[in-house]
Amino acid sequence: MKVGFLQFNPEFGRKEKNLDTIANILHNKEADLMVLPELCTTGFNFIDKEEARSFAEPFENGPTRVFLKDLARELNMALVAGFLEKEGSKVFNSLMFLPPDGEDILYRKLHLFDRGKLTFDPGDIPFRVHAYRGIKLGFAICFDWIYPEAFRTLALQGAQIICHCTNLVLPFYPMAALVRAVENGVFIVYSNRTGSENRGGIELGYIGTSRIVSPRGEILAEADKIQEITCIVEIDPTKASDKNITGLNHLFDDRRPEFYKL
Amino acid sequence: MKVGFLQFNPEFGRKEKNLDTIANILHNKEADLMVLPELCTTGFNFIDKEEARSFAEPFENGPTRVFLKDLARELNMALVAGFLEKEGSKVFNSLMFLPPDGEDILYRKLHLFDRGKLTFDPGDIPFRVHAYRGIKLGFAICFDWIYPEAFRTLALQGAQIICHCTNLVLPFYPMAALVRAVENGVFIVYSNRTGSENRGGIELGYIGTSRIVSPRGEILAEADKIQEITCIVEIDPTKASDKNITGLNHLFDDRRPEFYKL
Repeated sequence: MKVGFLQFNPEFGRKEKNLDTIANILHNKEADLMVLPELCTTGFNFIDKEEARSFAEPFENGPTRVFLKDLARELNMALVAGFLEKEGSKVFNSLMFLPPDGEDILYRKLHLFDRGKLTFDPGDIPFRVHAYRGIKLGFAICFDWIYPEAFRTLALQGAQIICHCTNLVLPFYPMAALVRAVENGVFIVYSNRTGSENRGGIELGYIGTSRIVSPRGEILAEADKIQEITCIVEIDPTKASDKNITGLNHLFDDRRPEFYKL
Repeated sequence: MKVGFLQFNPEFGRKEKNLDTIANILHNKEADLMVLPELCTTGFNFIDKEEARSFAEPFENGPTRVFLKDLARELNMALVAGFLEKEGSKVFNSLMFLPPDGEDILYRKLHLFDRGKLTFDPGDIPFRVHAYRGIKLGFAICFDWIYPEAFRTLALQGAQIICHCTNLVLPFYPMAALVRAVENGVFIVYSNRTGSENRGGIELGYIGTSRIVSPRGEILAEADKIQEITCIVEIDPTKASDKNITGLNHLFDDRRPEFYKL
Protein backbone atom coordinates (compact mmCIF):
# COMPACT_ATOMS: atom_id res chain seq x y z
CA MET A 1 0.00 0.00 0.00
CA LYS A 2 1.33 3.42 -0.96
CA VAL A 3 0.66 6.08 1.64
CA GLY A 4 1.67 9.69 1.72
CA PHE A 5 1.23 13.13 3.11
CA LEU A 6 0.85 16.47 1.40
CA GLN A 7 2.48 19.28 3.36
CA PHE A 8 1.73 22.81 2.21
CA ASN A 9 0.89 26.34 3.31
CA PRO A 10 -2.85 26.97 2.97
CA GLU A 11 -3.87 30.58 2.46
CA PHE A 12 -6.21 31.82 5.14
CA GLY A 13 -9.83 31.80 4.10
CA ARG A 14 -9.21 31.07 0.40
CA LYS A 15 -10.89 27.73 0.06
CA GLU A 16 -11.05 27.56 -3.72
CA LYS A 17 -7.43 28.54 -4.12
CA ASN A 18 -6.33 25.97 -1.54
CA LEU A 19 -8.36 23.25 -3.22
CA ASP A 20 -6.70 24.14 -6.54
CA THR A 21 -3.30 23.99 -4.86
CA ILE A 22 -4.08 20.54 -3.50
CA ALA A 23 -5.28 19.32 -6.91
CA ASN A 24 -2.23 20.76 -8.63
CA ILE A 25 0.24 19.21 -6.20
CA LEU A 26 -1.47 15.82 -6.30
CA HIS A 27 -1.82 15.80 -10.10
CA ASN A 28 -0.22 12.63 -11.47
CA LYS A 29 0.72 11.36 -8.02
CA GLU A 30 0.09 7.71 -7.30
CA ALA A 31 -0.87 6.49 -3.88
CA ASP A 32 -3.59 4.54 -2.14
CA LEU A 33 -3.91 7.00 0.69
CA MET A 34 -2.97 10.66 1.06
CA VAL A 35 -3.20 12.66 4.29
CA LEU A 36 -3.62 16.43 4.17
CA PRO A 37 -3.27 18.93 7.04
CA GLU A 38 -5.88 19.96 9.57
CA LEU A 39 -8.22 22.67 8.24
CA CYS A 40 -6.31 22.54 4.98
CA THR A 41 -8.70 24.70 2.98
CA THR A 42 -9.54 27.47 5.45
CA GLY A 43 -6.64 27.93 7.84
CA PHE A 44 -6.90 27.63 11.61
CA ASN A 45 -6.41 30.95 13.35
CA PHE A 46 -9.92 32.40 13.42
CA ILE A 47 -10.64 35.47 15.51
CA ASP A 48 -13.81 34.00 16.96
CA LYS A 49 -16.41 31.34 16.36
CA GLU A 50 -18.52 33.68 14.27
CA GLU A 51 -15.70 34.12 11.83
CA ALA A 52 -15.02 30.39 11.80
CA ARG A 53 -18.69 29.74 11.11
CA SER A 54 -18.55 32.02 8.08
CA PHE A 55 -16.00 29.67 6.47
CA ALA A 56 -17.59 26.43 7.61
CA GLU A 57 -19.70 24.12 5.47
CA PRO A 58 -21.78 21.02 6.06
CA PHE A 59 -20.26 17.59 5.59
CA GLU A 60 -23.28 16.57 3.53
CA ASN A 61 -22.76 17.91 0.02
CA GLY A 62 -20.39 20.66 1.10
CA PRO A 63 -18.28 22.06 -1.77
CA THR A 64 -14.97 20.94 -0.22
CA ARG A 65 -16.18 17.37 0.03
CA VAL A 66 -17.59 17.41 -3.49
CA PHE A 67 -14.33 18.79 -4.89
CA LEU A 68 -12.07 16.40 -2.98
CA LYS A 69 -14.26 13.37 -3.64
CA ASP A 70 -14.02 14.07 -7.35
CA LEU A 71 -10.26 14.38 -6.95
CA ALA A 72 -10.08 11.12 -5.00
CA ARG A 73 -11.93 9.35 -7.81
CA GLU A 74 -9.82 10.96 -10.52
CA LEU A 75 -6.59 9.96 -8.77
CA ASN A 76 -7.93 6.64 -7.48
CA MET A 77 -6.53 7.73 -4.10
CA ALA A 78 -8.26 8.02 -0.75
CA LEU A 79 -7.89 11.48 0.76
CA VAL A 80 -7.92 12.40 4.43
CA ALA A 81 -8.45 16.13 4.75
CA GLY A 82 -9.07 18.46 7.65
CA PHE A 83 -11.94 20.88 7.03
CA LEU A 84 -14.16 23.30 8.88
CA GLU A 85 -17.57 21.82 9.41
CA LYS A 86 -20.87 23.51 10.18
CA GLU A 87 -23.77 21.57 11.65
CA GLY A 88 -26.65 23.68 12.87
CA SER A 89 -25.14 26.38 15.02
CA LYS A 90 -22.06 24.30 15.74
CA VAL A 91 -18.63 24.59 14.13
CA PHE A 92 -16.38 21.55 14.23
CA ASN A 93 -12.70 21.15 13.45
CA SER A 94 -13.26 17.98 11.43
CA LEU A 95 -11.66 15.66 8.94
CA MET A 96 -13.16 13.67 6.13
CA PHE A 97 -11.94 10.37 4.79
CA LEU A 98 -12.84 10.16 1.11
CA PRO A 99 -12.08 6.87 -0.62
CA PRO A 100 -12.43 6.74 -4.40
CA ASP A 101 -15.20 4.23 -3.84
CA GLY A 102 -17.14 3.46 -0.73
CA GLU A 103 -18.38 5.32 2.26
CA ASP A 104 -17.02 8.71 3.26
CA ILE A 105 -16.18 9.05 6.96
CA LEU A 106 -16.39 12.07 9.24
CA TYR A 107 -14.38 12.67 12.42
CA ARG A 108 -14.60 15.75 14.65
CA LYS A 109 -11.57 16.75 16.72
CA LEU A 110 -12.14 15.59 20.27
CA HIS A 111 -9.30 17.45 21.98
CA LEU A 112 -9.28 21.12 21.07
CA PHE A 113 -6.09 23.15 21.51
CA ASP A 114 -5.81 26.56 23.11
CA ARG A 115 -7.87 29.20 21.26
CA GLY A 116 -9.42 26.45 19.17
CA LYS A 117 -11.60 26.00 22.25
CA LEU A 118 -13.09 29.42 21.55
CA THR A 119 -13.54 29.02 17.81
CA PHE A 120 -14.70 25.40 17.50
CA ASP A 121 -17.10 23.08 19.27
CA PRO A 122 -15.68 19.92 20.83
CA GLY A 123 -16.03 16.77 18.77
CA ASP A 124 -18.80 14.32 19.51
CA ILE A 125 -18.01 11.35 17.26
CA PRO A 126 -16.36 8.28 18.83
CA PHE A 127 -13.01 7.02 17.60
CA ARG A 128 -13.74 4.30 15.07
CA VAL A 129 -11.70 2.23 12.70
CA HIS A 130 -12.61 1.92 9.01
CA ALA A 131 -11.59 -0.66 6.45
CA TYR A 132 -10.02 0.50 3.20
CA ARG A 133 -8.46 -1.82 0.64
CA GLY A 134 -8.26 -4.51 3.30
CA ILE A 135 -6.50 -2.29 5.84
CA LYS A 136 -7.92 -0.71 8.96
CA LEU A 137 -7.51 3.03 9.28
CA GLY A 138 -7.94 5.28 12.29
CA PHE A 139 -8.24 9.07 12.23
CA ALA A 140 -7.12 11.82 14.56
CA ILE A 141 -6.60 15.57 14.46
CA CYS A 142 -3.58 17.43 15.85
CA PHE A 143 -3.80 17.83 19.65
CA ASP A 144 -5.47 14.45 19.99
CA TRP A 145 -1.85 13.23 19.98
CA ILE A 146 -1.12 14.34 23.54
CA TYR A 147 -3.76 11.98 24.89
CA PRO A 148 -2.36 8.46 24.65
CA GLU A 149 -5.91 7.22 25.15
CA ALA A 150 -6.81 8.51 21.69
CA PHE A 151 -4.37 6.49 19.60
CA ARG A 152 -4.73 3.58 22.03
CA THR A 153 -8.48 3.49 21.48
CA LEU A 154 -7.89 3.35 17.73
CA ALA A 155 -5.14 0.74 17.97
CA LEU A 156 -7.16 -1.53 20.24
CA GLN A 157 -9.90 -1.46 17.62
CA GLY A 158 -7.38 -2.76 15.13
CA ALA A 159 -6.15 0.39 13.40
CA GLN A 160 -3.06 -0.40 11.34
CA ILE A 161 -2.51 3.10 10.03
CA ILE A 162 -3.44 6.23 11.96
CA CYS A 163 -4.11 9.11 9.60
CA HIS A 164 -3.42 12.31 11.46
CA CYS A 165 -4.18 15.81 10.17
CA THR A 166 -2.24 18.48 12.06
CA ASN A 167 -1.55 22.21 12.39
CA LEU A 168 1.30 21.81 14.87
CA VAL A 169 2.78 24.90 16.45
CA LEU A 170 4.74 23.24 19.26
CA PRO A 171 7.92 21.25 18.52
CA PHE A 172 7.10 18.15 20.44
CA TYR A 173 4.98 15.91 18.25
CA PRO A 174 7.52 14.96 15.56
CA MET A 175 9.29 13.02 18.30
CA ALA A 176 6.17 11.96 20.17
CA ALA A 177 4.76 10.42 16.99
CA LEU A 178 7.51 7.81 17.19
CA VAL A 179 6.43 6.92 20.71
CA ARG A 180 2.76 6.76 19.74
CA ALA A 181 3.69 4.41 16.88
CA VAL A 182 5.85 2.15 19.05
CA GLU A 183 3.53 1.93 22.05
CA ASN A 184 0.66 0.94 19.75
CA GLY A 185 2.54 -0.93 17.04
CA VAL A 186 0.91 1.12 14.28
CA PHE A 187 1.93 3.17 11.29
CA ILE A 188 1.30 6.89 11.64
CA VAL A 189 0.99 9.23 8.69
CA TYR A 190 0.69 12.81 9.78
CA SER A 191 0.44 15.82 7.56
CA ASN A 192 1.29 19.17 9.06
CA ARG A 193 1.03 22.58 7.44
CA THR A 194 3.72 25.20 7.04
CA GLY A 195 3.70 28.99 7.16
CA SER A 196 2.14 31.25 9.74
CA GLU A 197 -1.09 33.05 10.44
CA ASN A 198 -1.23 36.44 12.15
CA ARG A 199 -4.81 37.33 12.93
CA GLY A 200 -6.30 39.59 15.56
CA GLY A 201 -2.81 40.18 16.92
CA ILE A 202 -2.16 36.48 17.52
CA GLU A 203 0.49 34.83 15.39
CA LEU A 204 0.73 31.09 14.97
CA GLY A 205 3.78 29.59 13.26
CA TYR A 206 3.36 26.07 11.96
CA ILE A 207 6.29 23.71 12.11
CA GLY A 208 5.90 21.45 9.06
CA THR A 209 8.00 18.32 9.69
CA SER A 210 5.28 15.95 8.47
CA ARG A 211 6.28 12.33 8.90
CA ILE A 212 5.43 8.73 8.12
CA VAL A 213 6.45 6.47 11.00
CA SER A 214 6.59 2.68 11.23
CA PRO A 215 5.31 0.53 14.11
CA ARG A 216 8.91 0.23 15.29
CA GLY A 217 9.39 3.98 15.42
CA GLU A 218 11.36 4.31 12.19
CA ILE A 219 10.90 7.54 10.23
CA LEU A 220 9.99 6.33 6.73
CA ALA A 221 9.56 9.79 5.24
CA GLU A 222 9.66 13.34 6.48
CA ALA A 223 9.40 16.87 5.23
CA ASP A 224 11.38 19.77 6.58
CA LYS A 225 9.81 22.79 8.27
CA ILE A 226 8.92 24.75 5.16
CA GLN A 227 8.67 22.40 2.18
CA GLU A 228 5.51 22.24 0.15
CA ILE A 229 5.82 18.62 -0.76
CA THR A 230 4.20 15.26 -1.21
CA CYS A 231 6.02 12.26 0.26
CA ILE A 232 4.78 8.78 -0.62
CA VAL A 233 6.16 5.48 0.66
CA GLU A 234 5.22 1.88 0.12
CA ILE A 235 4.40 0.13 3.37
CA ASP A 236 3.11 -3.26 4.40
CA PRO A 237 0.32 -2.32 6.81
CA THR A 238 -0.08 -5.94 7.92
CA LYS A 239 3.15 -5.43 9.88
CA ALA A 240 1.02 -3.39 12.27
CA SER A 241 -0.98 -6.50 13.03
CA ASP A 242 2.04 -8.25 14.49
CA LYS A 243 2.14 -7.03 18.07
CA ASN A 244 4.83 -9.51 19.09
CA ILE A 245 7.54 -7.06 20.02
CA THR A 246 9.78 -9.75 21.47
CA GLY A 247 9.59 -13.51 21.26
CA LEU A 248 7.70 -13.42 24.55
CA ASN A 249 5.94 -10.04 24.55
CA HIS A 250 2.68 -9.24 22.81
CA LEU A 251 2.10 -5.52 23.03
CA PHE A 252 -1.62 -5.80 23.69
CA ASP A 253 -1.99 -9.17 25.38
CA ASP A 254 0.58 -8.06 27.95
CA ARG A 255 -1.51 -5.11 29.06
CA ARG A 256 -2.74 -5.35 32.65
CA PRO A 257 -6.04 -3.47 32.44
CA GLU A 258 -7.10 -4.71 35.85
CA PHE A 259 -4.39 -2.43 37.26
CA TYR A 260 -5.19 0.65 35.17
CA LYS A 261 -7.41 3.40 36.56
CA LEU A 262 -8.11 5.66 33.62
CA MET B 1 13.39 19.01 46.70
CA LYS B 2 16.66 17.46 45.58
CA VAL B 3 16.19 14.35 43.49
CA GLY B 4 18.73 12.17 41.80
CA PHE B 5 19.65 8.90 40.21
CA LEU B 6 22.56 6.59 40.78
CA GLN B 7 23.70 4.89 37.57
CA PHE B 8 26.18 2.07 37.92
CA ASN B 9 27.15 -1.41 36.77
CA PRO B 10 26.01 -4.03 39.30
CA GLU B 11 27.99 -7.24 39.36
CA PHE B 12 25.86 -10.27 38.69
CA GLY B 13 24.84 -12.12 41.82
CA ARG B 14 27.16 -10.22 44.19
CA LYS B 15 24.64 -8.57 46.45
CA GLU B 16 26.95 -7.54 49.26
CA LYS B 17 29.49 -6.04 46.90
CA ASN B 18 26.78 -4.12 45.04
CA LEU B 19 25.36 -2.79 48.27
CA ASP B 20 28.82 -1.60 49.28
CA THR B 21 29.22 0.06 45.90
CA ILE B 22 25.93 1.89 46.39
CA ALA B 23 26.89 3.00 49.88
CA ASN B 24 30.30 4.17 48.71
CA ILE B 25 28.92 6.17 45.78
CA LEU B 26 26.20 7.77 47.89
CA HIS B 27 28.55 8.58 50.78
CA ASN B 28 28.31 12.31 51.56
CA LYS B 29 25.73 12.91 48.83
CA GLU B 30 22.81 15.14 49.72
CA ALA B 31 19.38 14.59 48.27
CA ASP B 32 15.81 14.02 49.36
CA LEU B 33 15.24 11.20 46.93
CA MET B 34 17.59 8.86 45.08
CA VAL B 35 16.53 6.35 42.42
CA LEU B 36 18.64 3.25 41.79
CA PRO B 37 18.39 0.79 38.88
CA GLU B 38 16.11 -2.20 38.53
CA LEU B 39 17.50 -5.29 40.29
CA CYS B 40 20.45 -3.22 41.36
CA THR B 41 21.93 -5.74 43.76
CA THR B 42 21.54 -9.00 41.84
CA GLY B 43 21.59 -8.29 38.12
CA PHE B 44 18.79 -9.19 35.72
CA ASN B 45 19.83 -11.90 33.30
CA PHE B 46 18.98 -15.11 35.16
CA ILE B 47 19.07 -18.39 33.34
CA ASP B 48 15.77 -19.55 34.83
CA LYS B 49 13.38 -18.89 37.67
CA GLU B 50 15.16 -21.36 39.89
CA GLU B 51 18.37 -19.40 39.63
CA ALA B 52 16.49 -16.14 40.21
CA ARG B 53 14.86 -17.61 43.29
CA SER B 54 18.27 -18.48 44.70
CA PHE B 55 19.16 -14.78 44.79
CA ALA B 56 15.74 -13.54 45.93
CA GLU B 57 14.80 -12.44 49.43
CA PRO B 58 11.63 -11.45 51.20
CA PHE B 59 10.63 -7.82 51.46
CA GLU B 60 9.99 -8.28 55.18
CA ASN B 61 13.34 -8.08 56.93
CA GLY B 62 15.35 -9.05 53.88
CA PRO B 63 19.05 -8.11 54.14
CA THR B 64 18.90 -5.71 51.16
CA ARG B 65 16.07 -3.78 52.73
CA VAL B 66 17.79 -3.70 56.12
CA PHE B 67 21.05 -2.47 54.59
CA LEU B 68 19.42 0.18 52.40
CA LYS B 69 17.05 1.39 55.10
CA ASP B 70 20.03 1.97 57.37
CA LEU B 71 21.70 3.85 54.53
CA ALA B 72 18.57 5.93 53.90
CA ARG B 73 18.52 6.92 57.57
CA GLU B 74 22.23 7.66 57.64
CA LEU B 75 22.00 9.85 54.55
CA ASN B 76 18.56 11.28 55.42
CA MET B 77 17.64 10.37 51.84
CA ALA B 78 14.77 8.25 50.53
CA LEU B 79 16.00 5.41 48.33
CA VAL B 80 14.08 3.72 45.51
CA ALA B 81 15.83 0.48 44.63
CA GLY B 82 14.99 -2.43 42.39
CA PHE B 83 15.49 -5.80 44.07
CA LEU B 84 14.66 -9.44 43.59
CA GLU B 85 11.84 -10.48 45.89
CA LYS B 86 10.79 -13.90 47.07
CA GLU B 87 7.33 -14.52 48.45
CA GLY B 88 6.43 -18.15 48.96
CA SER B 89 7.29 -19.88 45.70
CA LYS B 90 7.04 -16.66 43.71
CA VAL B 91 9.87 -14.46 42.50
CA PHE B 92 9.07 -10.84 41.78
CA ASN B 93 11.06 -8.16 40.00
CA SER B 94 10.27 -5.52 42.63
CA LEU B 95 11.29 -2.16 43.95
CA MET B 96 11.27 -0.79 47.44
CA PHE B 97 10.79 2.80 48.46
CA LEU B 98 12.67 3.41 51.68
CA PRO B 99 12.23 6.82 53.28
CA PRO B 100 14.50 7.73 56.21
CA ASP B 101 11.35 7.87 58.30
CA GLY B 102 7.93 6.48 57.62
CA GLU B 103 6.48 3.53 55.80
CA ASP B 104 8.45 1.50 53.31
CA ILE B 105 6.63 0.74 50.08
CA LEU B 106 6.77 -2.29 47.81
CA TYR B 107 5.96 -2.40 44.08
CA ARG B 108 6.20 -5.47 41.85
CA LYS B 109 6.83 -4.99 38.12
CA LEU B 110 3.53 -5.38 36.32
CA HIS B 111 4.83 -5.58 32.76
CA LEU B 112 7.59 -8.13 32.39
CA PHE B 113 9.99 -7.92 29.46
CA ASP B 114 11.08 -10.77 27.23
CA ARG B 115 12.88 -13.52 29.19
CA GLY B 116 11.92 -11.76 32.39
CA LYS B 117 8.61 -13.53 31.79
CA LEU B 118 10.40 -16.83 32.35
CA THR B 119 12.42 -15.80 35.37
CA PHE B 120 9.95 -13.64 37.34
CA ASP B 121 6.30 -13.76 38.30
CA PRO B 122 4.07 -10.92 37.10
CA GLY B 123 3.41 -8.18 39.62
CA ASP B 124 0.20 -8.14 41.60
CA ILE B 125 0.31 -4.81 43.46
CA PRO B 126 -1.78 -1.92 42.07
CA PHE B 127 -0.15 1.35 41.06
CA ARG B 128 -0.42 3.66 44.05
CA VAL B 129 0.89 7.07 44.92
CA HIS B 130 2.71 7.74 48.17
CA ALA B 131 3.34 10.99 50.01
CA TYR B 132 6.91 11.89 50.95
CA ARG B 133 7.95 15.26 52.34
CA GLY B 134 4.70 16.73 51.06
CA ILE B 135 5.17 15.40 47.52
CA LYS B 136 3.37 12.54 45.83
CA LEU B 137 5.55 9.83 44.33
CA GLY B 138 4.70 7.08 41.89
CA PHE B 139 6.82 4.01 41.14
CA ALA B 140 7.44 1.97 38.02
CA ILE B 141 9.95 -0.58 36.76
CA CYS B 142 11.54 -0.59 33.30
CA PHE B 143 9.16 -2.02 30.66
CA ASP B 144 6.16 -0.50 32.43
CA TRP B 145 7.14 2.56 30.37
CA ILE B 146 5.78 1.21 27.09
CA TYR B 147 2.27 1.08 28.52
CA PRO B 148 1.00 4.66 28.70
CA GLU B 149 -1.71 3.38 31.02
CA ALA B 150 0.93 2.77 33.71
CA PHE B 151 2.24 6.31 34.10
CA ARG B 152 -1.26 7.67 33.42
CA THR B 153 -2.68 5.68 36.29
CA LEU B 154 -0.01 7.13 38.57
CA ALA B 155 -0.43 10.69 37.29
CA LEU B 156 -4.21 10.62 37.63
CA GLN B 157 -3.70 9.64 41.26
CA GLY B 158 -1.66 12.79 41.70
CA ALA B 159 1.91 11.56 41.26
CA GLN B 160 4.24 14.54 40.87
CA ILE B 161 7.43 12.53 40.50
CA ILE B 162 7.57 9.09 38.91
CA CYS B 163 10.51 7.11 40.25
CA HIS B 164 11.49 4.58 37.64
CA CYS B 165 14.06 1.81 38.12
CA THR B 166 15.28 0.42 34.79
CA ASN B 167 17.55 -2.10 33.10
CA LEU B 168 17.02 -0.76 29.58
CA VAL B 169 18.49 -2.68 26.68
CA LEU B 170 16.57 -0.98 23.86
CA PRO B 171 17.38 2.58 22.81
CA PHE B 172 13.88 3.97 22.84
CA TYR B 173 13.03 4.99 26.36
CA PRO B 174 15.43 7.92 26.83
CA MET B 175 13.30 9.74 24.24
CA ALA B 176 9.99 8.21 25.30
CA ALA B 177 10.53 9.39 28.87
CA LEU B 178 10.15 12.96 27.60
CA VAL B 179 6.80 12.05 26.08
CA ARG B 180 5.61 10.28 29.23
CA ALA B 181 6.56 13.37 31.25
CA VAL B 182 4.80 15.79 28.90
CA GLU B 183 1.62 13.80 28.37
CA ASN B 184 1.21 13.46 32.15
CA GLY B 185 2.77 16.72 33.31
CA VAL B 186 5.05 14.93 35.78
CA PHE B 187 8.70 14.76 36.66
CA ILE B 188 10.37 11.47 35.84
CA VAL B 189 13.56 10.26 37.50
CA TYR B 190 14.81 7.07 35.99
CA SER B 191 17.92 5.21 36.89
CA ASN B 192 19.31 2.77 34.39
CA ARG B 193 22.25 0.45 34.77
CA THR B 194 25.34 0.14 32.58
CA GLY B 195 27.46 -2.80 31.50
CA SER B 196 26.36 -6.11 30.10
CA GLU B 197 25.46 -9.58 31.26
CA ASN B 198 26.27 -12.70 29.25
CA ARG B 199 24.62 -15.69 30.81
CA GLY B 200 23.49 -18.98 29.35
CA GLY B 201 24.56 -17.74 25.94
CA ILE B 202 22.30 -14.70 26.08
CA GLU B 203 23.96 -11.31 26.25
CA LEU B 204 22.17 -8.22 27.39
CA GLY B 205 23.83 -4.82 26.99
CA TYR B 206 22.41 -2.04 29.13
CA ILE B 207 22.31 1.47 27.72
CA GLY B 208 22.80 3.74 30.73
CA THR B 209 21.51 7.22 29.74
CA SER B 210 19.65 7.73 33.02
CA ARG B 211 17.68 10.96 33.03
CA ILE B 212 15.70 13.40 35.10
CA VAL B 213 12.94 14.98 33.01
CA SER B 214 10.63 17.90 33.76
CA PRO B 215 6.86 18.01 33.16
CA ARG B 216 7.58 20.06 30.02
CA GLY B 217 9.92 17.45 28.61
CA GLU B 218 13.16 19.22 29.50
CA ILE B 219 16.15 17.00 30.33
CA LEU B 220 17.30 18.32 33.71
CA ALA B 221 20.13 15.82 34.11
CA GLU B 222 21.46 12.83 32.23
CA ALA B 223 24.24 10.32 32.34
CA ASP B 224 25.99 8.92 29.31
CA LYS B 225 25.93 5.25 28.36
CA ILE B 226 28.74 4.06 30.59
CA GLN B 227 29.20 6.48 33.48
CA GLU B 228 28.97 5.27 37.04
CA ILE B 229 27.57 8.46 38.44
CA THR B 230 25.13 10.17 40.73
CA CYS B 231 23.24 13.14 39.30
CA ILE B 232 21.19 15.31 41.65
CA VAL B 233 19.06 18.30 40.72
CA GLU B 234 16.85 20.66 42.68
CA ILE B 235 13.29 20.63 41.41
CA ASP B 236 10.01 22.18 42.45
CA PRO B 237 7.67 19.18 42.34
CA THR B 238 4.62 21.41 42.78
CA LYS B 239 5.12 22.40 39.14
CA ALA B 240 3.76 18.98 38.33
CA SER B 241 0.47 19.96 39.92
CA ASP B 242 -0.11 22.70 37.37
CA LYS B 243 -1.70 20.88 34.47
CA ASN B 244 -2.59 24.08 32.62
CA ILE B 245 -0.50 23.56 29.53
CA THR B 246 -2.00 26.56 27.74
CA GLY B 247 -4.17 29.36 29.01
CA LEU B 248 -7.16 27.31 27.93
CA ASN B 249 -5.98 23.69 28.20
CA HIS B 250 -5.89 21.63 31.37
CA LEU B 251 -4.12 18.38 30.61
CA PHE B 252 -6.45 16.21 32.67
CA ASP B 253 -9.73 18.13 32.62
CA ASP B 254 -9.56 18.12 28.81
CA ARG B 255 -9.53 14.34 28.64
CA ARG B 256 -12.61 12.85 27.00
CA PRO B 257 -12.90 9.52 28.83
CA GLU B 258 -16.39 8.94 27.45
CA PHE B 259 -14.70 8.42 24.08
CA TYR B 260 -11.88 6.16 25.26
CA LYS B 261 -12.20 2.39 25.01
CA LEU B 262 -9.26 1.02 26.93
